[in-house]
Amino acid sequence: MTRISLDQAQTIVSGALAEARALKLKPISVAVLDAGGHLIAFAREDGSSNLRPQIATAKASGALALGVSSRTIGEMAVERPTFITAAAGLNPAGIVPAAGGVLVRGSDGAVIGAVGVTGDTSDNDELAALAGIKAAGLSA
Amino acid sequence: MTRISLDQAQTIVSGALAEARALKLKPISVAVLDAGGHLIAFAREDGSSNLRPQIATAKASGALALGVSSRTIGEMAVERPTFITAAAGLNPAGIVPAAGGVLVRGSDGAVIGAVGVTGDTSDNDELAALAGIKAAGLSA
Amino acid sequence: MTRISLDQAQTIVSGALAEARALKLKPISVAVLDAGGHLIAFAREDGSSNLRPQIATAKASGALALGVSSRTIGEMAVERPTFITAAAGLNPAGIVPAAGGVLVRGSDGAVIGAVGVTGDTSDNDELAALAGIKAAGLSA
Amino acid sequence: MTRISLDQAQTIVSGALAEARALKLKPISVAVLDAGGHLIAFAREDGSSNLRPQIATAKASGALALGVSSRTIGEMAVERPTFITAAAGLNPAGIVPAAGGVLVRGSDGAVIGAVGVTGDTSDNDELAALAGIKAAGLSA
Repeated sequence: MTRISLDQAQTIVSGALAEARALKLKPISVAVLDAGGHLIAFAREDGSSNLRPQIATAKASGALALGVSSRTIGEMAVERPTFITAAAGLNPAGIVPAAGGVLVRGSDGAVIGAVGVTGDTSDNDELAALAGIKAAGLSA
Repeated sequence: MTRISLDQAQTIVSGALAEARALKLKPISVAVLDAGGHLIAFAREDGSSNLRPQIATAKASGALALGVSSRTIGEMAVERPTFITAAAGLNPAGIVPAAGGVLVRGSDGAVIGAVGVTGDTSDNDELAALAGIKAAGLSA
Repeated sequence: MTRISLDQAQTIVSGALAEARALKLKPISVAVLDAGGHLIAFAREDGSSNLRPQIATAKASGALALGVSSRTIGEMAVERPTFITAAAGLNPAGIVPAAGGVLVRGSDGAVIGAVGVTGDTSDNDELAALAGIKAAGLSA
Repeated sequence: MTRISLDQAQTIVSGALAEARALKLKPISVAVLDAGGHLIAFAREDGSSNLRPQIATAKASGALALGVSSRTIGEMAVERPTFITAAAGLNPAGIVPAAGGVLVRGSDGAVIGAVGVTGDTSDNDELAALAGIKAAGLSA
């Protein structure tokens, strides 16, 4: 397993921000975590509200916590709300059950980290996350 | 971005209390926070119950956390209950998804703080908050 | 037992602020709690740092929690640090072991609330708290 | 009061990282917070340990919480250990009483945010923080 480098993480952040500006999204925040769930790089655009760092981190951390994207966690939350609420309480960074948290995989397919984006609709947040991962030459 | 001064915050509090008495509301509590979510001024009327300080603060803090009024958060909570529950768990002061928490904007339109009111119905709480903001010459 | 009214609490706050200005103290914050430890009135002067609401509240709440002034709690913390640290962990609002948190007594000598002040030295914070209590015609 | 922009925050981060490489420090982590204590930008160098995001954030958040640098908080912690332990428990992001957390001031002298650096000795961490602030044309 390879760890995401700071260079790669900063490329993911700048790629996600560029996509957000290209799509004219509301101000977004982007968090990149390593496979252990620990923050490597983060940026919050001007005009973002206060809780965006925690939401971006929780989207990515939740994806790593359960091994699926936060979009899938959102679907699980509809079917089994008490399970996701319980799991969120167990994860120090929490879990946000909405799209925008995406696992990052290395060339061998192993999970090497995760990206979390928040600020616009969940679907748009996810587009920015995917653009960031692509900009770094990594796979979602 | 200007910070709400103590003078302005106390005017918001007294304006909200005056509106509550004019409308003959139940005893209310009023919290005024700066843009960072930190309390500037607070008052709890005689006869209020114990948790009112936390509820008033969480209405205002939640509005700052997500960048919308607590009325809008209440609507989001109907559509996406697990998202709001998750976000509330990430915000140290919590989030209360019910009207009465209103963002305060300066002359340039930037958010400079928030007011939270609790004690009567959510709609009436919001009326008191808006009256307080108006009394201070600021915009909701 | 009488409860401190909002009028009395606001008089305590304005009396403490007036004393702070007369003594040319650094910007202070003042919290007035009822006997149950629940906030009635609060003010934070312009230029205060972020944690002042919690520190002012914890000075007053700690005094109510242990039944002595936060000055006495500071002395206890020197003699028995692990006891005070443990007690602080049990009190939801925490305990700050430094002068500035003063019990307020009614005409029959019973505790009816507490005042917490922070922003300058602990000794000066306590002077402001005492001035506020005196301004409201109550006893420390 | 001006808010630190994302551009300024990213310049602080890159300035601090450049100083760390020039001084051949161990891998560092850099957090830039707005005046309310909310993260704007963050970077953790390759080879850093897991808790660095929280330590960098707590150095900066503690400085904003008490209105002094984390170096001064470290001195306060020697004189009054139970006070700092109590205050740390009240601040959601915690307080780290060691140099490396520096307040950032705008052109009018008002606090507009804070930088926290961790990874090498506290003295060296502070040098990197100061270099970052200087790179952005702001004042410590």
